[in-house]
Amino acid sequence: MKLPAKKNDLDTPALLLDLAKLKRNIQKMADFFRDKPCKLRPHFKTPKTVEIAKLQLDAGAIGITCAQVSEAEVLVQAGIHDILIANEIVGRIKIKRLLKLLKKGADVKVAVDSAENIQDLARLAAKAGGTLGVLVDINVGLPRCGVAPERGVELARMIAKSASLRLRGIMGYEGHIVLSADRKLREEECRKSMAKLVSAKGLIEKDGHKVKIVSGGGTGTYYVTGTFPGVTEVQAGSYALMDTRYDQLGLGFEKAVTVMATVISKAFPPFIITDAGEKTMSIEFGLPQLIGVERAKLAMLSEEHGHILYEGTPPALQIGDRVEFYPSHICTTINLNDWLWVMDGEQVVDRWKIAARGLAQ
Amino acid sequence: MKLPAKKNDLDTPALLLDLAKLKRNIQKMADFFRDKPCKLRPHFKTPKTVEIAKLQLDAGAIGITCAQVSEAEVLVQAGIHDILIANEIVGRIKIKRLLKLLKKGADVKVAVDSAENIQDLARLAAKAGGTLGVLVDINVGLPRCGVAPERGVELARMIAKSASLRLRGIMGYEGHIVLSADRKLREEECRKSMAKLVSAKGLIEKDGHKVKIVSGGGTGTYYVTGTFPGVTEVQAGSYALMDTRYDQLGLGFEKAVTVMATVISKAFPPFIITDAGEKTMSIEFGLPQLIGVERAKLAMLSEEHGHILYEGTPPALQIGDRVEFYPSHICTTINLNDWLWVMDGEQVVDRWKIAARGLAQ
Repeated sequence: MKLPAKKNDLDTPALLLDLAKLKRNIQKMADFFRDKPCKLRPHFKTPKTVEIAKLQLDAGAIGITCAQVSEAEVLVQAGIHDILIANEIVGRIKIKRLLKLLKKGADVKVAVDSAENIQDLARLAAKAGGTLGVLVDINVGLPRCGVAPERGVELARMIAKSASLRLRGIMGYEGHIVLSADRKLREEECRKSMAKLVSAKGLIEKDGHKVKIVSGGGTGTYYVTGTFPGVTEVQAGSYALMDTRYDQLGLGFEKAVTVMATVISKAFPPFIITDAGEKTMSIEFGLPQLIGVERAKLAMLSEEHGHILYEGTPPALQIGDRVEFYPSHICTTINLNDWLWVMDGEQVVDRWKIAARGLAQ
Repeated sequence: MKLPAKKNDLDTPALLLDLAKLKRNIQKMADFFRDKPCKLRPHFKTPKTVEIAKLQLDAGAIGITCAQVSEAEVLVQAGIHDILIANEIVGRIKIKRLLKLLKKGADVKVAVDSAENIQDLARLAAKAGGTLGVLVDINVGLPRCGVAPERGVELARMIAKSASLRLRGIMGYEGHIVLSADRKLREEECRKSMAKLVSAKGLIEKDGHKVKIVSGGGTGTYYVTGTFPGVTEVQAGSYALMDTRYDQLGLGFEKAVTVMATVISKAFPPFIITDAGEKTMSIEFGLPQLIGVERAKLAMLSEEHGHILYEGTPPALQIGDRVEFYPSHICTTINLNDWLWVMDGEQVVDRWKIAARGLAQ
């Protein structure tokens, strides 16, 4: 496909990625980790785009974190081999997909938090003739996966006893606090979570097992997690692209993605209707932010439409004009779309496939 | 690809379509319209799947409604030619895509609600050497697109004057009322909306223009719109697949789609965690409904996880067990996924590509 030359040559709705902002975000995070003992393993669940993962690795990331086997498959296909799946991979079919990646030479590590899952992984890995690296998932406050630190020792023992599994470390995600707008509270709670995680490392090592990887952290807490003694890896993902929700935390990263839409109707004032709706932008973190239109904001989304509402004098927007929005939640917005249009100002310089979207497995 | 034989051979998360329920829904709606002057033109924005559109046409639907040029492209590619795009198609790039469909022999009709859009459509259709059918979009209460009935006359005149456009009729979507749980209110408001729509037909015909198509309606109001004198077509879409939101209206259609997930963690009671989250199921109409697990319900979704919460004794769910959910909003849930697994009980009988997903243009 011949690349459209300019922004106005793109059809809408379109996800625009400001390449300079992306690169600055990646550089800022890489700079933070450069001289630290803790390293960055950026989360792929946000960009789901191989080109971005490669830029992160080029800037010094030690590998990639992801949430799904399907994401790991996309990464391995692109030649990225040092992967942590920070999630429990359960069920015969999916475990077999995971083990296939080992055969392709990938160093894929996976989180576990149950004896049943460890048994299945061990049995299927033995059958496949491979050795799978596993991390014990420690619950550090988020009501989701992960065991209490004491129980982590039991799981570590089980792993150590299995010839087809290798204990690589532990992980714990402080997702319950990572978006808290209160900086002091966020930092305090994050330290509590990381203290819990590192205590699990202590208990497991005291029991005679080596815990090399200690992984946690997100974009809102990377600077706390990344300097917490004993934590070896940070899983932040959103920092590279950002969104309005994370922007409220004042972290110094730039919102690198906008959604471009076209004004398609002004027939029902005081509404102005665009062609980007819920099938293009997610809303679970609130409505996306309309950029640069005075006295107007996005009031609702329906499936294929954005409803802009204005007060007073109508904005100078005409039918066919383009408007742009900042996503409120970049991870789920990216997941709705197939392409990122890579921009240098008004110039389209590339398009990147959101290769791991929609494969929610 | 060899089709998995049984439900348990499918990886998760997976969208399961109960073929018998789908067929009964399609039959029930077809039966309603069989002897009516008003006909059914089902909306493709819900299933986005060509096989379902074909079943609807086989059952008597007069054509297909859709919301996007990309959906029309998928339909035309599949040999479906009688299409109403019930939406404003704005901008040179997208209008050119629309006109290409005429060249392929499709009878594509499109909604308009502005002079600017009519001028663009007329100019580009003339340049392409085609005649484009247009419907004047009348606002019947939803704060989105569509002009007031009086203003519809002006637009009809403009269309009539253009050699490259042909006035095919009018449309008006009562989306503000279509989901109202109060049956009496819903029916009353729907009649008000349809009275407004039909009044526009009167005004435009009085001005000397023929209004053949009068299109409106949704799943919650099809039986009102479909019997309202003067309305010729109904655009309902959700009826074929249904969801928990529409199910509250007691319309007699069956929920034909479930999302199958795997239990991946029980480490943090009283939560049970599954592998289907926001990247698989939409939540803007509320959380999906967990099916058949006593004292338990879905409490939240994160991106890749469903958080089931139980009260009292833990349910007998084990790691690796499958659970199913009814989507709360089928249209946006379908749009998150790539495949529908077509089921006859426990048997997988086919997989259908959600061919028009993700092309939000």
